[in-house]
Amino acid sequence: MYHLVQDKPVVQKYGGTSVGSLERIQNVARRVAEQHKQGLKKVAIVVSAMSGETNRLVDLVSGINPHASLRNYDMAVSAGEQVAVALMAAALEKEGVASYGFLAYQLGIVTDSLHSKARIRDIDCTKLYKCWEEGIIPVVAGFQGVTEDMEITTLGRGGSDTSAVALAVALDAGFCEINTDVDGVYTADPRVVPQAKLVEEMDFEVALEMASLGSKVLHSRCVELGAKYQMPIIVRSTFQPNDHQRTRIMSFQAQRRLEAPVVSGVTLDRNVVRMSLTHLPSKPGLIATVFDKIAKSGVNVDIIVHNKHEESDSVRLGFTIGAADLVRTQDMLQRWCEELGPQVKCTAERGLAKVSVVGLGMQSHPGVASQVFTVLEKEGVAIHMISTSEIKISSVVAEADAEKASRALHAAFIEE
Amino acid sequence: MYHLVQDKPVVQKYGGTSVGSLERIQNVARRVAEQHKQGLKKVAIVVSAMSGETNRLVDLVSGINPHASLRNYDMAVSAGEQVAVALMAAALEKEGVASYGFLAYQLGIVTDSLHSKARIRDIDCTKLYKCWEEGIIPVVAGFQGVTEDMEITTLGRGGSDTSAVALAVALDAGFCEINTDVDGVYTADPRVVPQAKLVEEMDFEVALEMASLGSKVLHSRCVELGAKYQMPIIVRSTFQPNDHQRTRIMSFQAQRRLEAPVVSGVTLDRNVVRMSLTHLPSKPGLIATVFDKIAKSGVNVDIIVHNKHEESDSVRLGFTIGAADLVRTQDMLQRWCEELGPQVKCTAERGLAKVSVVGLGMQSHPGVASQVFTVLEKEGVAIHMISTSEIKISSVVAEADAEKASRALHAAFIEE
Repeated sequence: MYHLVQDKPVVQKYGGTSVGSLERIQNVARRVAEQHKQGLKKVAIVVSAMSGETNRLVDLVSGINPHASLRNYDMAVSAGEQVAVALMAAALEKEGVASYGFLAYQLGIVTDSLHSKARIRDIDCTKLYKCWEEGIIPVVAGFQGVTEDMEITTLGRGGSDTSAVALAVALDAGFCEINTDVDGVYTADPRVVPQAKLVEEMDFEVALEMASLGSKVLHSRCVELGAKYQMPIIVRSTFQPNDHQRTRIMSFQAQRRLEAPVVSGVTLDRNVVRMSLTHLPSKPGLIATVFDKIAKSGVNVDIIVHNKHEESDSVRLGFTIGAADLVRTQDMLQRWCEELGPQVKCTAERGLAKVSVVGLGMQSHPGVASQVFTVLEKEGVAIHMISTSEIKISSVVAEADAEKASRALHAAFIEE
Repeated sequence: MYHLVQDKPVVQKYGGTSVGSLERIQNVARRVAEQHKQGLKKVAIVVSAMSGETNRLVDLVSGINPHASLRNYDMAVSAGEQVAVALMAAALEKEGVASYGFLAYQLGIVTDSLHSKARIRDIDCTKLYKCWEEGIIPVVAGFQGVTEDMEITTLGRGGSDTSAVALAVALDAGFCEINTDVDGVYTADPRVVPQAKLVEEMDFEVALEMASLGSKVLHSRCVELGAKYQMPIIVRSTFQPNDHQRTRIMSFQAQRRLEAPVVSGVTLDRNVVRMSLTHLPSKPGLIATVFDKIAKSGVNVDIIVHNKHEESDSVRLGFTIGAADLVRTQDMLQRWCEELGPQVKCTAERGLAKVSVVGLGMQSHPGVASQVFTVLEKEGVAIHMISTSEIKISSVVAEADAEKASRALHAAFIEE
């Protein structure tokens, strides 16, 4: 059990589906007001835009100009949270609790200026403490931030989770509650693996791997922040009673970690594109230049494979990126390849997916990788790329094989 | 003709219907970019929310809580401008012009803290000058402001016109262009009076009376600001070519004023409620208290009729307010009447409208009032209340008579 220090604040985040209609907003307000009356005075609510709204705004701005500057893009897509904040505050007022809405600039949620993928630098909590002194529940806009020059930024899709955990850290909260449309984190996506079970307790490291490997429940940067500042995260369903099952993500004791399951979860990420650069000249520093250019355009590179062709003395470089970054990465690399010479080619391969097994117990159980290969081989699934860390093994496979692979790995490691 | 000082900035405002779809936004952007290429470098664009959007937001917040605090209400309803600003800036970028969007807090459009009816105190134009130095067209959110404590305010419905003129004043602009869905200001509402004609030149005083008397084309506070700071306002249609007819509102020379028509326009306001307070005790200062209370709740009182009943020594007070203020005014007055004693009654009468004739020439043509009475009597229209100033005569009549009265007055004074 997590230990809730009684006088520590609590941050509760409600996602898009939780505030997807006026009725749902009112239900959330009722729950919060109830808890407030029962003594939870220092609570801050973080909300996302009503479900569908951010997509609507993205469609509008992309419809006007698919190449709009990210500055103008962020201004358009962050408007949904403003509405949700105001509606939640008004709903709390209806429940008889005073409530103030806060946008990023009003609270001082200061980020860097990497529009549409900004990172929070600082949050000024002065106004929240003042609210609590006056019995007011503050409702804070997730997803958005403001630069020091007062430009609107957004934290990337799903960034409201990050806003909530960052706010919890800034407030030194007891924990951050992520209220969503599922009961918690499962051992696999139940739509893919019907045998998937809810994980009641999960270490940050496992949660972080699962989030970054494609588990949709949590945004990986939110878990990263939680882990960095040891802020417990509770994932629970908005639509279930308060005593319903949930997932607690925190740092467990060393003893508990030793007893951790070898594999806690199986994840599936369909959002994988493999980029290949072939016939690269074997020049020192060239590979570093590639990844430096990619990083500077704000694209995350995942699995990297690097082959030197001994005869021709040329290099072949393969790596995976998210499908959303494909156009940008390809444009940039194509130009760069042309500068290097006509023999250098840049290609992109779609139709791939990444299936991973994650578990703290792997650290003390060698041989998990070979077990993964055996399981996939038995299912006739070809592995295109592979990547391992201390607590995960990821295989890039054909998208058509991905669900079969997930079920087989879940059966072998979790159901066994 | 107005005199455009060539190096003075220009403010162009585009209303809800002008930005009502992505296609219309792109059309506006094309016009602005064209003018920019032809040398109009110092131009600032003010936009309203896309048509229907503010109503949608009002419905949402009223649906959640019809008694939401105005602070939360303003946060909800001002979100539409943010989207329109971002889309317009993105559309200008598509036309090959750099463009920055600005919300109220980003520019420093500082208002008082009278939420939903705020008044602009100051606008910091530093960022706009910086934009122009760099060839960037600034797009500014209308309707919204920010208090010194960084709370969002709104200027009242139609407030984007006011934002535009205030910005023109702050910039010392050559003029402020209001681009809307009509060609300009007409001698009457053409839907009511088919003979109505466009007025090409209009003095501020006449425009102000017409706006405050119900002509929907301009927001009266916008004309008030224009008059106060002598900022010429041009009303034109977004959907017509640049050389199409329009209305120029400014201060004309004394000679021109002398030649002004007796009546420039006939207005019709259906939005009238008569409040009556009866059996008020005849105490000094009591009437002042009533209007002080009403003013403090942010309600504008229009025509006032005050009768002292000599026999009973009691006072009967009648006055008109806008229909939107009815609930608030009635709630407040009801409570106050109860304090004064059981005989004091407060009643509201709906189903009324106000028909007015407005014209600078009235100043030098006595007898207009008696002509108004004659015209209305001949039509069989009963006058419930009347109010006159140097340049207008307003009659409160039954709503059912209002259109007939408008046509008769227009025929008598303008078509004759």
